[in-house]
Amino acid sequence: MDHNEFRRLGHQLVDWIADYRARLGELPVMSPAEPGAIRARFPVEPPVEGGRLAEAVARLDELILPGITHWNHPAFFAYFPSNTSLASVLGDLACAGLGAQGMSWQTSPAATEVEQVVMDWLRRMVGLPETFQGVVQDSASTSTLTALLCARERTAGFAQEGAGLQDGGAPMTVYASAQAHSSVEKAALLAGFGRAHVRHVGVDASFALRPELLEAAIAEDLAAGRRPCAVVACTGTTATTALDPIAAVAEIAERHRLWLHVDAALAGTAMILPECRWMWAGVERADSVVWNPHKWMGIGFDFSAFHVRDPGHLGRVMSTNPSYLRTAQDGRVVNFRDWGIPLGRRFRALKAWFHLVDEGVLAMQARIRRDLENARWLAEEVDRADGWERLAPVPLQTVCLRHVPSGERDEGRLGAHNLEIAGRVNRSGRAYVTPSLLEGKQMIRVSIGATATERRDVEGVWAALGAAADARA
Amino acid sequence: MDHNEFRRLGHQLVDWIADYRARLGELPVMSPAEPGAIRARFPVEPPVEGGRLAEAVARLDELILPGITHWNHPAFFAYFPSNTSLASVLGDLACAGLGAQGMSWQTSPAATEVEQVVMDWLRRMVGLPETFQGVVQDSASTSTLTALLCARERTAGFAQEGAGLQDGGAPMTVYASAQAHSSVEKAALLAGFGRAHVRHVGVDASFALRPELLEAAIAEDLAAGRRPCAVVACTGTTATTALDPIAAVAEIAERHRLWLHVDAALAGTAMILPECRWMWAGVERADSVVWNPHKWMGIGFDFSAFHVRDPGHLGRVMSTNPSYLRTAQDGRVVNFRDWGIPLGRRFRALKAWFHLVDEGVLAMQARIRRDLENARWLAEEVDRADGWERLAPVPLQTVCLRHVPSGERDEGRLGAHNLEIAGRVNRSGRAYVTPSLLEGKQMIRVSIGATATERRDVEGVWAALGAAADARA
Repeated sequence: MDHNEFRRLGHQLVDWIADYRARLGELPVMSPAEPGAIRARFPVEPPVEGGRLAEAVARLDELILPGITHWNHPAFFAYFPSNTSLASVLGDLACAGLGAQGMSWQTSPAATEVEQVVMDWLRRMVGLPETFQGVVQDSASTSTLTALLCARERTAGFAQEGAGLQDGGAPMTVYASAQAHSSVEKAALLAGFGRAHVRHVGVDASFALRPELLEAAIAEDLAAGRRPCAVVACTGTTATTALDPIAAVAEIAERHRLWLHVDAALAGTAMILPECRWMWAGVERADSVVWNPHKWMGIGFDFSAFHVRDPGHLGRVMSTNPSYLRTAQDGRVVNFRDWGIPLGRRFRALKAWFHLVDEGVLAMQARIRRDLENARWLAEEVDRADGWERLAPVPLQTVCLRHVPSGERDEGRLGAHNLEIAGRVNRSGRAYVTPSLLEGKQMIRVSIGATATERRDVEGVWAALGAAADARA
Repeated sequence: MDHNEFRRLGHQLVDWIADYRARLGELPVMSPAEPGAIRARFPVEPPVEGGRLAEAVARLDELILPGITHWNHPAFFAYFPSNTSLASVLGDLACAGLGAQGMSWQTSPAATEVEQVVMDWLRRMVGLPETFQGVVQDSASTSTLTALLCARERTAGFAQEGAGLQDGGAPMTVYASAQAHSSVEKAALLAGFGRAHVRHVGVDASFALRPELLEAAIAEDLAAGRRPCAVVACTGTTATTALDPIAAVAEIAERHRLWLHVDAALAGTAMILPECRWMWAGVERADSVVWNPHKWMGIGFDFSAFHVRDPGHLGRVMSTNPSYLRTAQDGRVVNFRDWGIPLGRRFRALKAWFHLVDEGVLAMQARIRRDLENARWLAEEVDRADGWERLAPVPLQTVCLRHVPSGERDEGRLGAHNLEIAGRVNRSGRAYVTPSLLEGKQMIRVSIGATATERRDVEGVWAALGAAADARA
């Protein structure tokens, strides 16, 4: 493709995206595609002759769109908000166009330095102290794995330089609430701790970790000769946005020298609101903090913000220094390849820069407040409605609810009933919600926060849920 | 930003990229920026008011370009080719515009199914048998870590479900040639094996792993009661593109039940040439294979192709199944979140699809042949030239050379001399090469393969090296 065709197809694609975003609300939120249907539209053999990009671009509507579940749709209430602002789209375009590698400072100084700039902006925006330094990771899963690797090596006295986890030392243990995200256990397993050394600490009525149970679990492990290593505390759990008491956990972590990792993947964005900062009071005592600007904030996936108090330790765990990666500037600059798992690194800071200068902090704060207010409105509606139950507090933007037909007490039938309600709503294409279990109860999670979602859309999902429940009656 | 401004700035940015690519050859290859210079151009505080994206786009030339090392430059001969085709740029744009999540099939069926399509196309293109299934990872580093985690769990009988690596079992060991990429050792350390259990197997005169030394190292570990677990064989090492004998390694791996992971990060692209397939003969016996279409092939970073023979095993090591991620289609579809570390996944298959239909296999083969021919030409020039030494065979596109002034035998002075030659070339902006060590000798790696690089550019770097050597005389 020559530069002229790039201009032509590029303009066409920009317009296609603008059109797509403009008519997004008319499309079914969840893709109605059947398994295999999209794949069947593509040839089995790779293209021998080239020159067919114009055709591919022209066929996006036909080949791809029916297979898209629209995360930026105003009626997207599933999983978590995953907003990709139009400014962020342009940042990703600039990143791809430059095609620069940010693995070392020298391989594109701007990639490293703009990442330092935006990570420090984000640190200030959420109120983390200057003692923290940040790096972009692809996901909270990877950030949490990185944190647990750092914890493992700190507790084990850098056993990776010797026999690793195979040194026959006393087993190390990891703690998190029973409501912690699945990525915490996955990270502990991948890091080699073993499921037998992961403690699921009990929660209180608001689904927050109970510090006295954490203390008891640590005491039990110490008594058995094990080495408590790390605790992951959540600000905003996945199921219900529960808030673990960070300061109390930090006090315990400090006393027993555990690594404290704070997982605020979704909720971190709300920390740009002064009135929300109480939710993670004590976070300044953490060793590492992850939150995902690629969720609610609007910087497109992937952009997970990972801040640590001791980047020297992170670098020691993650660095490699073969001769072919050494540069004349080593020692004077940051080489972000030593701050994470992959060697190669995209210039992801561009999309953050574009997003932040486009929306600005004030407008972002207003949008987040709108979403919080919409969630409170829905919570009140649920509380007022006959036959509906709210299953958890609503400190943020997620409302956990279920329909309980009069007289029904059987959890099995209630579960099937609510799964069917969620399924009907999702299949209707009018809204998309996530069925989930909460301590054995089948619930429906309504997660508010797509940038396009206004009050009328929240009214819409509430009406759709009601209609689905009525249809079952 | 409204849709109209998006159109306007989007068109402007597409044109900026086209202009940038058109005048790329006039820019200094390696960024001349001083540490801190780019960062100093940005405010310390995040933007309070928004609406300043047009200004950011307008200032890209001034703020960002001076900090870019141009990986798509025709005189880029450093590290490895990292081509981002213009088609791939458009694919990334479409990916960002859709903003879809591919973590589960249901969260955007097209993301999963087009990934299956292009991974199967790539499998066919490089001649891997149908027994392999593929998934996109961010980097070879992550793919190799994933492979070693799979190996660890296979050898340990899924110890992650119990005490993990802390079960007191006999230590497991990992093998790779002394020329393997630093990411292999990093992966082994992160996976918990410990540096003491990583064996650097000696190489022959062509820098390829010596199978009899692998066999001996395994025998020694077995005799000591350790458990040989995995071997990483390289097709195209980083320093010299050496070719480990895959079939011989596979035979040993099968006999001792080691996981065989083949790292063809750079060289995989050359496997689209029938005349290159001998280089990894036996690869069909591997358990996992990684190569990076985001290097030489032209699909923009990040797009690492990871193929495994047993995706069920991969899924078992990597999967999580919390209630909030279950969908109605589970069991009938692939959920790629279970095939790697991160939960969230971008729709990276779009840029592969765009690139492959735009360039096509035939044109790609012609381009790779051109690069191989250019490398052979340079190797012959080096061999013919007085005062220059070639330090390794050139089976692919990397030429390892050094300047040896008449009579100089002192390795220290030779090292400083060649570091200075490379530094002069790099600082001149006329070409960019990588100084590196090969068994203690300071060499200069000339890695050919940027899409824009023609014979005249290779002649250019050769002339620049000569001029730098002359200037030192």
